[in-house]
This record gives sequence, structure tokens and C-alpha cells, in this order.
Amino acid sequence: MASKFITFLSDFGYTDDFVGTCHGVIKSIAPEVEIIDLCHGIRRHDIRTGALILANALHYMPESVVLGVVDPGVGTGRRPLAIRTAQGRFLVGPDNGLLSLAAAALGGAEAAVELACSAYSLPQVCKTFEGRDLFSPVAAHLAQGVRLERLGAPVPVDDLVRIELPPPVTRDGEIAATVIYIDRFGNVQLNLSREQLAAAAAAPGSDLVVSHGEESWRVPFVSAFGEVDPEELLVMEDSYHNISFAVNRGDAARMFQIQVGDEIRFRASS
Amino acid sequence: MASKFITFLSDFGYTDDFVGTCHGVIKSIAPEVEIIDLCHGIRRHDIRTGALILANALHYMPESVVLGVVDPGVGTGRRPLAIRTAQGRFLVGPDNGLLSLAAAALGGAEAAVELACSAYSLPQVCKTFEGRDLFSPVAAHLAQGVRLERLGAPVPVDDLVRIELPPPVTRDGEIAATVIYIDRFGNVQLNLSREQLAAAAAAPGSDLVVSHGEESWRVPFVSAFGEVDPEELLVMEDSYHNISFAVNRGDAARMFQIQVGDEIRFRASS
Amino acid sequence: MASKFITFLSDFGYTDDFVGTCHGVIKSIAPEVEIIDLCHGIRRHDIRTGALILANALHYMPESVVLGVVDPGVGTGRRPLAIRTAQGRFLVGPDNGLLSLAAAALGGAEAAVELACSAYSLPQVCKTFEGRDLFSPVAAHLAQGVRLERLGAPVPVDDLVRIELPPPVTRDGEIAATVIYIDRFGNVQLNLSREQLAAAAAAPGSDLVVSHGEESWRVPFVSAFGEVDPEELLVMEDSYHNISFAVNRGDAARMFQIQVGDEIRFRASS
Repeated sequence: MASKFITFLSDFGYTDDFVGTCHGVIKSIAPEVEIIDLCHGIRRHDIRTGALILANALHYMPESVVLGVVDPGVGTGRRPLAIRTAQGRFLVGPDNGLLSLAAAALGGAEAAVELACSAYSLPQVCKTFEGRDLFSPVAAHLAQGVRLERLGAPVPVDDLVRIELPPPVTRDGEIAATVIYIDRFGNVQLNLSREQLAAAAAAPGSDLVVSHGEESWRVPFVSAFGEVDPEELLVMEDSYHNISFAVNRGDAARMFQIQVGDEIRFRASS
Repeated sequence: MASKFITFLSDFGYTDDFVGTCHGVIKSIAPEVEIIDLCHGIRRHDIRTGALILANALHYMPESVVLGVVDPGVGTGRRPLAIRTAQGRFLVGPDNGLLSLAAAALGGAEAAVELACSAYSLPQVCKTFEGRDLFSPVAAHLAQGVRLERLGAPVPVDDLVRIELPPPVTRDGEIAATVIYIDRFGNVQLNLSREQLAAAAAAPGSDLVVSHGEESWRVPFVSAFGEVDPEELLVMEDSYHNISFAVNRGDAARMFQIQVGDEIRFRASS
Repeated sequence: MASKFITFLSDFGYTDDFVGTCHGVIKSIAPEVEIIDLCHGIRRHDIRTGALILANALHYMPESVVLGVVDPGVGTGRRPLAIRTAQGRFLVGPDNGLLSLAAAALGGAEAAVELACSAYSLPQVCKTFEGRDLFSPVAAHLAQGVRLERLGAPVPVDDLVRIELPPPVTRDGEIAATVIYIDRFGNVQLNLSREQLAAAAAAPGSDLVVSHGEESWRVPFVSAFGEVDPEELLVMEDSYHNISFAVNRGDAARMFQIQVGDEIRFRASS
């Protein structure tokens, strides 16, 4: 067996049988493979959040085939894809950017094929549920050692859809970064590293002025929630090594109506 | 071991420990058995939806013992059951119809027993949680090869409770079908096949007139969501080979206040 | 391998990748270990409910390392802990009482260590996600047979934080007990046994007067939901051998605005 594990992420949720049925398909083909359910609670059709979670979490996963299904374009022209990375890892899912950040984190796409109905899919591929009929069986066969080239026609890797994350911008003594993720606790994750923030504004241990739209707050740059009192604001490096803006035991996103894609600005507190 | 897998469906939800505790009971008896969680998000006490999901999904599952627990009558007179089908597959759960469609899909019930407190249940069977104390241990023992006849007294298979799905009715150039399931995206699934719809009204590629109560819409009969624009209505064969009425990237059930059990009518568009 | 299973409980929920990432960490270290997800739907930061569920459910689990993460104090002074019980079982989690009831149910804590960043944690332990970086790897290593003493400095077991459940109080012909848990169906679980209730008020089969604040109801003391009509009140021993106050096919907690920590009083019906 080429891979003992399949890491599975989707926006299928938990109220229907979508996840369980994909498990059944995989186990019918590859009974010895183990499936690690990374997350199926991605907001419906939120490709970018799915891509970020995959890229962030892969560092913590055992070697595995990655199966990602957040697929608003299922049944239309978007390509169904399998990718091999420079590190020899495989990713399976739609060509809509979902896999792009994870592929980059695994050394970059080295080869890709457009999946076709074949001996490695279910006999009938339903256009409305390719997760079950195409992606799951292909992931199972890759885990069992089937070669990528047998799964479909090659696609130039430069043609694959990519997600671009806007880099932080420094101007007028401020650094402006984009909200890329809000977790269920309302913590606001930015596309900004500790090093970038320290270089442009202030180092951990100092205070920052944080701005969102017209609002500004003076906020300590700490290293743990518990360093401020409950209900107090804080800025810190989060568990995925991004800068987060948060409220200790509170919900920063709801309190200040912050959404994914918003800009947050930081400068040193004078 | 008679079966490597147990396929498990319930209405236990995910906020309590009901599912996890049943896993523990099964693993305590049969550590080598693998449990595939088909779905635990069935609406509380919704026997018919549970029965439909079991019957639809089993086709995609590896050979397994089926454990189904949607059981509003737990602790009352309804029988606890284990069934062997003509295909030699086993199903365990309450005798309220939950297992009936799956049993039919697996060749029909060939033998059934009324489960009793025995060496194959937990020592104390609590009347309020037979899922844990009776059904889970019995499923584990069946997976390990214990014979059905050892689990309780025989029940004539003709006495088992069945769920009847109302068949579609053709009248006055229309075909009327019943809503049997609404998924979390609001897609409306009917007890109607593509062949039945094509024979009575129109074939894929044509337009249909779809009616619900006093309302009617002209709707294309397509083969994928993406063939209509976002927010547009469509009729198509869904992933379980039933006809569905849906809105591309929208929620048809909420938009038109359609509920399980409602009647939807179709005729050719003139 | 010392233990084939890890029993995992947390308040991580299902919308983020927290649970899946911890699975990845465990499987990266101990690919052969099986994880039983007892429950991840504990209300955020509700240590007491987590502790009760762990203690109640362990009786049904196979021998396993217990991993519990409900941790409002993560990143502050509270100790990260591994415990060995008198029965030779291991528990891993924060020293905030979460593990205390389970440890007691497994013979009582015999030895404990304060976990440190070491060869048995991830190389970098992030203060905001010790579940991933410290507790998960330690649980995996314990399951593989690493000795407790290698994981950190000893802590006197008498210093561990404990959760105390208020015992029922008998006075003026009444017994007053505390609501310790409300499940998703709204059933109200009390820190009161059938024996205690029978000794102080009445035996199963009788009627009781149940009081909450100013309200009182006459309620039958039964042994199953189905012994009363739908929407009727009942008192019975629940599946964890505690007395529960409930409404058949209804939601007692919502109907009477009962919360965890409230007092419920029982006396014989004259």
C-alpha cells in the first residue's frame, strides 16, 4: 500500500450522509486505508477557508493522500483533478484552488491529471456528487498505489487554478493585513506573520494601535490569551503562526463586525 | 470474523456522548471491527428519513452489519430486532420500520429475532438507552460471527413493521409524487424516478411545469446544477437516482415552504 | 503497545479542524492506535459537564488512554497533566478538574506529572493550542508504552484540582438534589440515585411531588419514557443510573427554564 491514510476535508456537514457514504466508498475499495476526517464543517462553498485549513493542518498529518471536496462548480466545466507534488504526495479534488495552498506547502504541484470516468471511479459518475463517485474512489486507489498517470489525461501544472492571498502592505508607518479566517470562537486570523508585524510596528510585549475601518483600539501584543483579563482585547501569534486579533473568552469578530476579507491595520502605540 | 465493518446510523446528534459511548461498547466486545458512521444527524425521531438514508447509502458501503437507532418508542412495547436478509446480511435496531427499506434493498428479510437480555447484551439493559445496552453489543457479536438464532426468539418476517412510500400517481396528464427527503441544502427529493417522469411528462432536456399547491413554475429538466444560472430552478435526477426539485446555489425547500410529505406535480410544458 | 485505544473528549466542536488536527498528531506518532471520539460537542469551557461525561462513559469504553481537553485556562498558570490511576489507567489533560471524576472512577490518582515540553511533545508547544502540541502527543506516547515518569516532574496527587458535586440534602421530608447535566433532548439529570430517592421520598411505581423554585408538579416515578403519554412529566432512573426529571417526547429544561446547578426537590405524594 502506498499510503496508510487519507486526509479528508469537505463542506458536507454532519446532518446528511454525504461524509459517511464517501467513507463507505473508500472502504469498499481500500478496506485497510484509514481516513482522518480533518474537517467537514467548512462553510458551504467556502473554497478559500477550505484551502487555508488544508495548508495549515497538513504539517500535523501523517503522510496521506489528501481528499478535498468544496465544490460549488460540481457538474459544470471545472476540472476534477489529481495532483502529485514534488514531495511525492497526492491530492484529489476539484480544480478551483481548494488544493492549491496545500500543494504549494507540499513542495508544489509536479504533475496533474484531469480525472475521467474509468476503472478507478465508480461505474456511474453522477454529476451532482463527484465527491462520492469520482474523488473518493480515486483517493482510495492512489492510497493503494495506483499511478497518477492511469487516472486521466495530463494537465499542465501551470494551468491549475490558484488561490492568491493578498500580502500585507506597509504604508505611512502602518502595516495593513487581510482577515483570512475566523474560527468558531470569533478569533480573527490575519495573513500576517509575527516577524512582519514586529518589523513594521512593534514586537511582542509592546502595545499596538489596531484599526478596523473607522475604529481603533490600543491592544497589547501578547503570547497567550491568559495574559489579559477576560473580555480584554489582545493581539498574538496564533497556533498556525499567523497574527490573530482576539478577545480573551469573548468573540472579537462578532463584537466588532469583522468579516473574512476585511483589512486590519497595525501601528506602534506612541 | 464474519464482518469487518458495522455501518451505524442514528438520531443521537453530536452534542452528547451517545455515539461515542456506543463506539466504546462495540470496541470493548469486538476490538477489530471498524465502525463506519453513516450519519448521526437524522432529525430526532424521524424514522422515515433514517430508513431512506440507510436504504440509499447501503449500495455504497462495504459488506457490514447495519446498526440503526432512531427509536422514539424505546422502553415501550416495540420489539428490539435483529434481521438476516436473503443476501446473508444483518441489520440490528428497533422494529419500527427503520430497517425495513434497507432489508428490502438487501434481498428482503429472511429471518428475524426479538432481542432479549442475554450473554450478547450488556449485563444490565437500561430501558432508556437500548442503543448502548442492547443494539450495539448485538451488532458487535454479529460482526464476530455469532449466529442470529442465539440472540432471541424468532419473529415471523411478515410481522415486521414496514415503511410504505407512496408511489407516484399519474392523472390528467400529470404525475404527482411525494417529497421523501430534504437535504441540508434545501434540495427536494421525490419518490419518483427519471424513467417514471419521462414516461408521464417529458424527457431530460425538455421543460416541465412543476406545481406545489397553488403555485406553478416552468422549470428545465437538466442533468446538473451548473446547467442553469445561480438562483434558477431546476429538475434533475439526483445522486440517489431520484428526481429532485432544486434551486442552483439556493434553498428550494425554504424558498417555497416545501416539506417532507408534500405532493409535487409535473407535466410537460406546452 | 500499552494501549490500543485513546478515548478523546473536548469542547472543540465540529466547525474547525481542531479535532482532526489532533487526530493527525496522534496518528503521526502512533499509527496503530485507534481513537474513540467520545464527544467534542461539550459546551465551550464547560469543565463540569466534560468531567461528568468522562466519568459516566468510561465504564463503557475499552481499556484506553483518556485524552480530555476542555481548557479555558490554556496558556496561563494551570498545570498540564498526565495521571496514572490505581487501576493502571492513564489520563491526559489540564489540571482544572476535568479529569478528576474519571480518575476517581478508575481507582483514584496514584501518580501525576506536570507535562513539560520534551521529546514527547511537538518540538514547538504553542501556548494557545496545547491540545495539539502537548496533550495529543503525550497521549500517543503513553498509548505506546512510554512511562509516566518520563513526561515531566511529579505532582503530589493531593494537589490536583478536583470537582466537587454537591450531595443531595434531606430536610423536612424532602430530598433536594442539584441539576448536573441537561442533554440535547432537555432531560434534566440530577446528582441523585434511585436508592437515595426511594429512601427519602418514594419508590418507583409511586407518585412524587417535584419542585423547582416556586413551581411544583405531581409526577409518576417510572422506569421508561413510554410509561407516560407524550408531553407528560416523569421521573426515572436514567441510563447513567442518575435520577432524571423529563417530559416524554418533550424538553423539560426548556419548558420549565431549568439550568445546570439548579436545585430540584422531591417528596412523597400524599
